[in-house]
Amino acid sequence: MLSERIQAHIRDIQNFPFEGIVFKDLTPVLKSPSLCREIAEAISEQLRPLKPDALVCIESRGFWFGLMVASNLNIPMIPVRKEGKLPYKTISENYKLEYGHAKLEMHIDAIQPGWQVVIHDDLLATGGTAEAVAKLVRKQGSAVIGFSFVVELSYLEGRKVLEAYSSHVQTITTY
Amino acid sequence: MLSERIQAHIRDIQNFPFEGIVFKDLTPVLKSPSLCREIAEAISEQLRPLKPDALVCIESRGFWFGLMVASNLNIPMIPVRKEGKLPYKTISENYKLEYGHAKLEMHIDAIQPGWQVVIHDDLLATGGTAEAVAKLVRKQGSAVIGFSFVVELSYLEGRKVLEAYSSHVQTITTY
Repeated sequence: MLSERIQAHIRDIQNFPFEGIVFKDLTPVLKSPSLCREIAEAISEQLRPLKPDALVCIESRGFWFGLMVASNLNIPMIPVRKEGKLPYKTISENYKLEYGHAKLEMHIDAIQPGWQVVIHDDLLATGGTAEAVAKLVRKQGSAVIGFSFVVELSYLEGRKVLEAYSSHVQTITTY
Repeated sequence: MLSERIQAHIRDIQNFPFEGIVFKDLTPVLKSPSLCREIAEAISEQLRPLKPDALVCIESRGFWFGLMVASNLNIPMIPVRKEGKLPYKTISENYKLEYGHAKLEMHIDAIQPGWQVVIHDDLLATGGTAEAVAKLVRKQGSAVIGFSFVVELSYLEGRKVLEAYSSHVQTITTY
């Protein structure tokens, strides 16, 4: 099973980035090109029936699989970045992390009004980051028709937060 | 020509991130999945003869094409990130940007001694960032056998800096 093989590559890091948090380190997954291709293909298979107009990818771990998946689906890859990183005019959204605050930005011409997009990141924890991006997408007059993650930490219940935006919350492996 | 088509998609941003700098914005390129596939394939063709053991990719724009190219070459993708972002034990390197300072980190077990690696980023400017990564690679007992960028700003002469590490400085389009 793909899920088991991914988990065999994921490394638990105790107390990162803060005391009491067990961080799921996906970097060992990136060492296996065949596993990465399988993951990108599995994500693409999940999203293909939704016929998204674009894949909105969250800096920076959401960039790892972003372009491969968008390429498989033959749709634009739209980067969402931290404050001050995107060079052209942006819209922004503040959000709360489980450990801190941050601001995310998207270029104002990145997506078109009326588009139906999927939001992608490597990992679903509390859902706060992906929710902020969903708000950015809606501000642009576009619809969120799904969310896509490689890993879900189900005990943090981020899925509940995101299902207010779309019932399609797709993940490849779940803890 | 691929080079002309890439440049037709790149957007000049005046005075970003600082006064007097003309920033080459590649985000419009990401909107074209066919162009992105062509770029990833062109980079892969440049690097294939070098037979690299891994592709070391620099956060975060170096992650855009990183996994697609590493997948094409069937080699590990190794992320280099800004300070404090990688969860496991790291080695680090300080470096000077054309506008500021920063620290880059790599996991201590990311690459093996004796490996021959290529360093990838989206854009070659002064070469300071890629040079810092080359130093990280050498600290690990590995060899830098090439550098790969989508865009080269030749007037900043970063190529001269990097050729001290490897004669293979590969780019897809040059200004």
